[in-house]
Amino acid sequence: MNEIKDKSMDVFLNELASTQATPGGGSAAAVMGAQAAALISMVCHLTIGKPKYVKVEEDMKQLLAKSEALREQLTAMIKTDVEVFDQLMACYGLAKDTDEQKAKRSVRIQLVLKEATMVPLECARASAKTIELSQIAVEKGYVGVVSDAGVAVMSAYSALKSAALNVYINTASIKDRTFADAKLLELEKILEGAEKKTENIYQLVKNKL
Amino acid sequence: MNEIKDKSMDVFLNELASTQATPGGGSAAAVMGAQAAALISMVCHLTIGKPKYVKVEEDMKQLLAKSEALREQLTAMIKTDVEVFDQLMACYGLAKDTDEQKAKRSVRIQLVLKEATMVPLECARASAKTIELSQIAVEKGYVGVVSDAGVAVMSAYSALKSAALNVYINTASIKDRTFADAKLLELEKILEGAEKKTENIYQLVKNKL
Repeated sequence: MNEIKDKSMDVFLNELASTQATPGGGSAAAVMGAQAAALISMVCHLTIGKPKYVKVEEDMKQLLAKSEALREQLTAMIKTDVEVFDQLMACYGLAKDTDEQKAKRSVRIQLVLKEATMVPLECARASAKTIELSQIAVEKGYVGVVSDAGVAVMSAYSALKSAALNVYINTASIKDRTFADAKLLELEKILEGAEKKTENIYQLVKNKL
Repeated sequence: MNEIKDKSMDVFLNELASTQATPGGGSAAAVMGAQAAALISMVCHLTIGKPKYVKVEEDMKQLLAKSEALREQLTAMIKTDVEVFDQLMACYGLAKDTDEQKAKRSVRIQLVLKEATMVPLECARASAKTIELSQIAVEKGYVGVVSDAGVAVMSAYSALKSAALNVYINTASIKDRTFADAKLLELEKILEGAEKKTENIYQLVKNKL
């Protein structure tokens, strides 16, 4: 019964809590997104094959394919976030004694900051898609696991809002404002309506309990 | 660089996504709560010892003690949720051929349903406390990791709302309405103002980025 914690989660949580800069909030956001997608897959798995749900079986299979793709994408981001953050820290550590070194360091930092913006932006996008999928899981999935679909929507929403913070923080240091503003605009479009949608899906779950 | 995923998280996510009923949303809620507490600890660890933050060092040490206690409590719930859910499933599987068996089964189910209500209720309570702690981390912690404190508040809020769903679902089947209503009232008190508080803390983070 100790499996989950002992195999695994504990190590991640210890690293998260530690003085190490990574993993941090970016990975935590990706974990929540991946968890949300996994819960949608669970709802699909527990709906497919149930005689009462034969009419939605095809929908559930399609939903499962989408949730599994998002889970894979979001799980990969747990690692990518650490990699890009470590790269950024390495850049900040570059020599800055001469003007040439300073210029080189600055160029490198600016390059990695753009990458460090794209990772949480993609995490936000995938999380927003996961919110959409959770609605289908709530509406069509086996009602006996509707609370799990409800946890999925909350987890995805939290992932989205968390990833957004990492987009804000990284764009703040980017000198290329055309790039930064374009990414911030993309983010605002992703965020648009997400809160209301999450509330509606959550209410839908409560009504089915 | 594959550590997090390979050691661990992948197995949990696979189990979450699988046809197995456990782990499910209850464990996912506890993971988010534990993650939130871990991120607060990280903020404390990265603030303590910084000369500029010497004035808040004592506050940060106290905050760290509290966040680590909550992390331990919430991490334990990942497992407890699985245990109590499996117990409940075992009860539903008890023989119900004779009236005596039916009566015994019902008594046992009702008993475990009360336990299954207490686990998410305690998860909700611990998550609400974690929201409170995240505010201190945002206000007094090292500003370089304020986005991590922001992820903490979102993660804790999602844990709270997710745990609430599991309180609702379990109390719905409890025949002892005095018990059920008392627990629902406790939950409402825990939820009171949490959304507004979370929004305020999130905004505070955005203003510091």
